[in-house]
Amino acid sequence: MTLLAQIREPRDLKALPEGRLPELAEEIRHFLIRAVARTGGHLGPNLGVVELTIALHRVFDSPADRILWDTGHQSYVHKLLTGRQDFSKLRAKGGLSGYPSRAESAHDVIENSHASTVLGWADGLAKANQVRGKDDHVVAVIGDGALTGGMAWEALNNIAVAKDRPLIIVVNDNERSYAPTIGGLADHLATLRTTDGYEKFLAWGKDVLEHTPVVGKPLYESLHGAKKGFKDAFAPQGMFEDLGLKYVGPIDGHDIAAVESALRRAAGFHGPVLVHCLTEKGRGYPPALEDEADRFHTVGVLDPPPATAEEHPRTRALVTSPGAPSWTSVFGDEMVRIGAERPDVVALTAAMLRPVGLGRFAEAYPDRVWDVGIAEQHAVVTAAGLATGGLHPVVAVYATFLNRAFDQVLMDVALHKCGVTFVLDRAGVTGTDGASHNGMWDLSVLGVVPGLRIAAPRDADQLRAQLREALDVADAPTVVRFPKASVDDPVPALDRIGGVDVLHRAPHPDVLLIAVGVMAPVCLRVAELLAARGVGATVIDPRWVKPVDAAVPELAARHAMVAVVEDNSVNGGVGWAVGQALRDAHVDVPLRTFGIPERFLPHAKRGELLADLGLTPAEIAGRICAAPARKESLS
Amino acid sequence: MTLLAQIREPRDLKALPEGRLPELAEEIRHFLIRAVARTGGHLGPNLGVVELTIALHRVFDSPADRILWDTGHQSYVHKLLTGRQDFSKLRAKGGLSGYPSRAESAHDVIENSHASTVLGWADGLAKANQVRGKDDHVVAVIGDGALTGGMAWEALNNIAVAKDRPLIIVVNDNERSYAPTIGGLADHLATLRTTDGYEKFLAWGKDVLEHTPVVGKPLYESLHGAKKGFKDAFAPQGMFEDLGLKYVGPIDGHDIAAVESALRRAAGFHGPVLVHCLTEKGRGYPPALEDEADRFHTVGVLDPPPATAEEHPRTRALVTSPGAPSWTSVFGDEMVRIGAERPDVVALTAAMLRPVGLGRFAEAYPDRVWDVGIAEQHAVVTAAGLATGGLHPVVAVYATFLNRAFDQVLMDVALHKCGVTFVLDRAGVTGTDGASHNGMWDLSVLGVVPGLRIAAPRDADQLRAQLREALDVADAPTVVRFPKASVDDPVPALDRIGGVDVLHRAPHPDVLLIAVGVMAPVCLRVAELLAARGVGATVIDPRWVKPVDAAVPELAARHAMVAVVEDNSVNGGVGWAVGQALRDAHVDVPLRTFGIPERFLPHAKRGELLADLGLTPAEIAGRICAAPARKESLS
Repeated sequence: MTLLAQIREPRDLKALPEGRLPELAEEIRHFLIRAVARTGGHLGPNLGVVELTIALHRVFDSPADRILWDTGHQSYVHKLLTGRQDFSKLRAKGGLSGYPSRAESAHDVIENSHASTVLGWADGLAKANQVRGKDDHVVAVIGDGALTGGMAWEALNNIAVAKDRPLIIVVNDNERSYAPTIGGLADHLATLRTTDGYEKFLAWGKDVLEHTPVVGKPLYESLHGAKKGFKDAFAPQGMFEDLGLKYVGPIDGHDIAAVESALRRAAGFHGPVLVHCLTEKGRGYPPALEDEADRFHTVGVLDPPPATAEEHPRTRALVTSPGAPSWTSVFGDEMVRIGAERPDVVALTAAMLRPVGLGRFAEAYPDRVWDVGIAEQHAVVTAAGLATGGLHPVVAVYATFLNRAFDQVLMDVALHKCGVTFVLDRAGVTGTDGASHNGMWDLSVLGVVPGLRIAAPRDADQLRAQLREALDVADAPTVVRFPKASVDDPVPALDRIGGVDVLHRAPHPDVLLIAVGVMAPVCLRVAELLAARGVGATVIDPRWVKPVDAAVPELAARHAMVAVVEDNSVNGGVGWAVGQALRDAHVDVPLRTFGIPERFLPHAKRGELLADLGLTPAEIAGRICAAPARKESLS
Repeated sequence: MTLLAQIREPRDLKALPEGRLPELAEEIRHFLIRAVARTGGHLGPNLGVVELTIALHRVFDSPADRILWDTGHQSYVHKLLTGRQDFSKLRAKGGLSGYPSRAESAHDVIENSHASTVLGWADGLAKANQVRGKDDHVVAVIGDGALTGGMAWEALNNIAVAKDRPLIIVVNDNERSYAPTIGGLADHLATLRTTDGYEKFLAWGKDVLEHTPVVGKPLYESLHGAKKGFKDAFAPQGMFEDLGLKYVGPIDGHDIAAVESALRRAAGFHGPVLVHCLTEKGRGYPPALEDEADRFHTVGVLDPPPATAEEHPRTRALVTSPGAPSWTSVFGDEMVRIGAERPDVVALTAAMLRPVGLGRFAEAYPDRVWDVGIAEQHAVVTAAGLATGGLHPVVAVYATFLNRAFDQVLMDVALHKCGVTFVLDRAGVTGTDGASHNGMWDLSVLGVVPGLRIAAPRDADQLRAQLREALDVADAPTVVRFPKASVDDPVPALDRIGGVDVLHRAPHPDVLLIAVGVMAPVCLRVAELLAARGVGATVIDPRWVKPVDAAVPELAARHAMVAVVEDNSVNGGVGWAVGQALRDAHVDVPLRTFGIPERFLPHAKRGELLADLGLTPAEIAGRICAAPARKESLS
């Protein structure tokens, strides 16, 4: 029986002799590499926090003490040490979540997978402890990348001022979240590393670190720079102490005894304290360490799984499913072409340069792209400034993350009539990352923004065309949204009426099916099923779903029923907007809306979720036939 | 002719001999006090930036150089110096905006009145200059209070790293935005003040400053504290230089020559630089300086206006319109009562403790209220932590500012089923503060949040009752929204069906009027007008507008038409939600939605705006009669 198998709960970990801990860490790394290779998941981040997580659960008493994980994709080790060692269905329907989950364990608190929230949660839990007279510990673990998010600043500012309220912040500093950490903070963290403690830490990773680029300034320069060195030698705590936080560190995050010792010091401090741990993302897995881009932040299924880390050549590990190009790559390729034609087009992203497909644009036009770090608000407001300065910015983010900048889209971009194009990758149901990664509210929330236009392309050709149409709008924000998937075959149009593509016509037009973006193939199949039941359907793709094209109510008036199909929340979605367009045009045709009901979705594959939600051709066709319609047709 | 009257544009200011500038400053202060007393507006912030604004326009060449104002309510002096000296209709329909306005002047850039955006705008404009090869200056003016917002941090982090991109940040440090600045940053700014430059600055305001409380720690202590003093004497630049920003300061912001000199140094630096200016909010106006609470941040009309500052006793200046209590005070008083009954109820606000009515709660329960600074995201995520820690937080903010924390409402509060109550003051059309202060999207945006419930009380009794109902919901977020206004007379209910109050019945129920919150009196008047035309109307107040009560479609089925009246965006509003409820219940009754169309509103009084939008009883009644309905009635 392995040591790991003996750990059923944190108490078992505490009972383990200190000398056995390196062996346990080794077992955990072996387990993670094997398990994640089978299911896919977040590998690099978890390999980096093995020792840190062991130390946390030895020093603190979870769940009475709260151990909180920012973003949460680095909680696999935490799961292993809190009774969850069946990773066979990780991120799959019915299996373990890839993030903390309150339903799984009392040791889990934060399920939200958006970054930079943990310090605010911790501040709230610490305040609750204070009000209720409890002296349990609250420990927040946050990566250096997440510290670039504004929420982290707001929290630090509030936490620092309460000198008598205990709260422990563990900064898991691996110089990268998804990519190397951005900005002045990264430079400052690099400076903090240049202390005595750091010299010892260098022993295990000197070469790796010296060759890791920090944006705009190699770390080497930080280590040896004369400008700030003198001052910081005497005041290495820097800005955290300036804010009023007790600073402990830097600590070698792979030295369990050192981390435990620092955490015990922090626990005894009875005030806000920051423990600065240096870790290595992907540690113990050579292919990850060799991959400078993101150190295997997430991997797909590796088939066959490797028996050992060493067996694993980099090339094989990097293979993802071949075949059709992704929506992301279609966008990325088109951006490179557009960049050559239009020197005014620039691009912004938030710590997601390659995941959103801007890697090639950045290589071609390095002076026209900015990665602002995990800072969506800044990406959007900066875009307003860029547009006002005469350029046309493309802000490329995951759909779910734009929610964090709704106010800036509304108040900075739209109010000022700025020509900014938002490209929303991973829109709709994304699946295995769980509730907070789905991009299923964008059409609703952006639907209220005055003047904003939204395109939902149905295939790669439309994506290319609509991206260009969006970039031609100079006086209003535009949005182009597409899913996390491979692009399917092109869906040809029969003709275009107004701005609307007609994809299918039936001899008897009973039902008008309005397909939002990638729901076009689904609607074409619905039309086939309806035809088999003697019901004629017209299928249209409005292309631009906001505003509703004037052709939509005109077409609707010639049908006995209208059905809108979208992979977005029903609340506030395209269906509701079409309802308003029908009312405004005094078209009194029954409307049916097919989308995502008002609920959070569990983790499962996109197809499984759509089936559970009834967004399949058979279900949609069945519900259309069951619904009452105008009497004169649909018999 | 006064000096001020001779300034038509910044060029005239540059031509003025340096020796005449104090006279000009004096004239501007006199003008502001007289003008704002007549119209109401932001007084304290503008009195604080007279010399700073003069210096900015003498050193830089606006509009080629961009002078950007954070929040914008301190732009009156800027308006006076850029050709806008007719303040007779300030903030009134057709008059000058109380904020910068692109329609007014090429010297204005940012119209958004939400805080902490200016550094992001500046970063975008500076990047655009760089891409386009322009060497114009970009100057961002931000208050110390706005630096507590996360956007400021995201921006500083990005600005600091670009060493070759010129950008000037002017921190207008008056130790308070709306109230004394919150958090560790405030302490740090206090420390920065303890340098040689500061000693000189003390000459003009030593007594005032020594008696100004900084949260949790008098400034006196900062000045003389031994803990940090030694270090900071040698490294006074502190965290801004830690981040990589060149720091200039502190500067006496009322010494025009000193500010000009600092700005010229900054302009020659060719990289990101921060100029730290110390100013006094309300300077030159004794009643403002005596008012520690907010130094006359905003004032109403003072009748008669004072001839001189000295004529102006504090008591008179503080008078606002007497009469009916405000919605805010009804909420504030009820919170004090609830606080006594429920020790688990705590409160949070974002730099708006008194404006949102929590002042008395804070006096009664100082350990159960937290002002987090201008940091709505932090307020919301902290609330999730507080709820998870066993308390029931009330987050009281202006409706428009909750937009900034939409992601946190969705992902932190709702996903985790936290019992958090959001109290949205200034919901709906607010009026004179212009486009970005209207709270007209809350019902739409919050309408997508799974499980969240929204109350729109129609009168003070309902506000008290629904606040308590909200606080009884332990497993989901709740929202209570009300307008910026005095409360009208109570609107009694005839009876309650399900959760719905019936306010009026007609002999022949032709139309069902659904009144959202304060639109109840409007709908009752609509019913009278319809009755005069022979159309019978039932008026209901659903009380909770999300979810739509099951009684609504049941009642609708007995009418020939349904009309929803709300002072919220039509897009995604209650009208659309009622439409879905009718479809789900297979109730095929025509629906008409009355709300705010998809546009930004100009500044004007609430009543004027509602009239312009057709949200008056006469317009609504007319449109209902003109609309087609089911044939069997409404003849």
